[in-house]
Amino acid sequence: MTTIDPRLSINQATIKHADLATALRVTADAGVQAIGLWREPVQAVGLATAAQMLADSGLRFSTHCRAGFFTMPEGQGRRASIDDNRVAIEETAALAAAGGPGSTAVLVLVAGGLPERSRDLAGARERVRDAIGELVPDAAAAGVTLAIEPLHPMYASDRCVVSTLGQALDIASDFDAAVVGAAVDTFHIWWDPDVLASIARAGREGRIATYQVCDWKTPLPADVLLGRHYPGGGIIDFASLTAAVVETGYDRDVEVEIFNEEIWATEPAEAVRRTAAGFADAVSPYLAAAPARLESRS
Amino acid sequence: MTTIDPRLSINQATIKHADLATALRVTADAGVQAIGLWREPVQAVGLATAAQMLADSGLRFSTHCRAGFFTMPEGQGRRASIDDNRVAIEETAALAAAGGPGSTAVLVLVAGGLPERSRDLAGARERVRDAIGELVPDAAAAGVTLAIEPLHPMYASDRCVVSTLGQALDIASDFDAAVVGAAVDTFHIWWDPDVLASIARAGREGRIATYQVCDWKTPLPADVLLGRHYPGGGIIDFASLTAAVVETGYDRDVEVEIFNEEIWATEPAEAVRRTAAGFADAVSPYLAAAPARLESRS
Repeated sequence: MTTIDPRLSINQATIKHADLATALRVTADAGVQAIGLWREPVQAVGLATAAQMLADSGLRFSTHCRAGFFTMPEGQGRRASIDDNRVAIEETAALAAAGGPGSTAVLVLVAGGLPERSRDLAGARERVRDAIGELVPDAAAAGVTLAIEPLHPMYASDRCVVSTLGQALDIASDFDAAVVGAAVDTFHIWWDPDVLASIARAGREGRIATYQVCDWKTPLPADVLLGRHYPGGGIIDFASLTAAVVETGYDRDVEVEIFNEEIWATEPAEAVRRTAAGFADAVSPYLAAAPARLESRS
Repeated sequence: MTTIDPRLSINQATIKHADLATALRVTADAGVQAIGLWREPVQAVGLATAAQMLADSGLRFSTHCRAGFFTMPEGQGRRASIDDNRVAIEETAALAAAGGPGSTAVLVLVAGGLPERSRDLAGARERVRDAIGELVPDAAAAGVTLAIEPLHPMYASDRCVVSTLGQALDIASDFDAAVVGAAVDTFHIWWDPDVLASIARAGREGRIATYQVCDWKTPLPADVLLGRHYPGGGIIDFASLTAAVVETGYDRDVEVEIFNEEIWATEPAEAVRRTAAGFADAVSPYLAAAPARLESRS
């Protein structure tokens, strides 16, 4: 029987094919205390119902995934994206209020790739900053932290033009740290020669909005989006990365978010069990240095 | 009829299935003036024969590909790798001497990935620096420049722990710039938020050993090694990258090195023709700002 780390949070993407009720049930039944949700299954039942279900589960709410996708130039598509991001901010606030004590109102933002037929990467990156600037007043009013997520550079053209933690911090630096932070996800940044320095900087600047863990292994699958693994299943050194995060004083939930066809085909309760076991082996030993102060957050 | 850029060099990997004789012939027949060779086809005919064939072709020699693969800890495997790198240095010197006026003695180094069952990325990176330190006296004596090639971070675990141009320059900075430089390959570094600053730094520090161009496009193929495209076939902004290289004063050959099953299946003369056409459209306009001074190099 695996001891469940009290700081483990199951990101709903790890059990993608479970609906919200199932995700909440298998997570709570496993003894996991927290969950990160995705917009589609929340919207499938409606926000008010989802919030009530989350409250009934007793789980903490760690992040809402995900918004962003605002690299396009000005026009109808960009306005629709900004509007949708505002909806996501409201969802995040409602869910964080419904979650158990220690819940955090963090909305993960994936920037989006190059617009069709564009090669202007620098321009796309500037439009990310502009979009966040538009959303900051809404996020501040709602008490929501926007977490800019750098994605691995293999996604830079078609999914996310923010490719390093340092770059995410540079964008965030224009804004209040209570409103704009960064997502620190091991899968995306483990390779970065500057990763430890960037984590330390993120801590100094108060920007670690969420710490997410999953593993990297090669060969990558045919769809490179789906190459994530249970912690310990690959080559990422969770010791050094987790120690660097702990060193900053980060004391909140740690999510496991895995995109993997095989794990998605696993029965959800079993996937949660394996996630918790991998986390206990590969991550928990390095979290122990900093005792959680979850009860002081809400 | 495409005008052939006088600075275009065909890297032999672009026509992987051509033997050395064919590669030299189709390159020269196309009106291309330079070629970069790979070790295997050179060794297939023997170094002395290869050097004579190159001399007979009249082509300039731009790089030798490739050595490196020295991330393993001390032991027999590491000694074998260092010894093989020394052979590659000798090959490079011999081929550069045999090539036409303006040939350059540049040996491209791919560092290698994490050793089996290792998660120690920092340690592997230190062993790259150590290996280069061992090779520097041999390279200096042979008049060869070692070009550290940063590879895209999607290869960081299994092929090359050097992932950014800045990191390559940090390693190179321990050594004489005439002996250790970096390979600037658009495919590997286009996504880097620091890429233009890193190219400028490479120029200031005298470290641009070779400039190589090919394009990036998604979705990536099932084998992510093979996702390179003719210049202009993807989303890389050759304008800004090439201008940054030109701005440093780099005035030597520009190689096209493509790994792509479909291009490899193309008749070699046709692949060279398409390479030259893509180069003329996507790269040449941005090289024009700096007239080649090839005749002053040897």
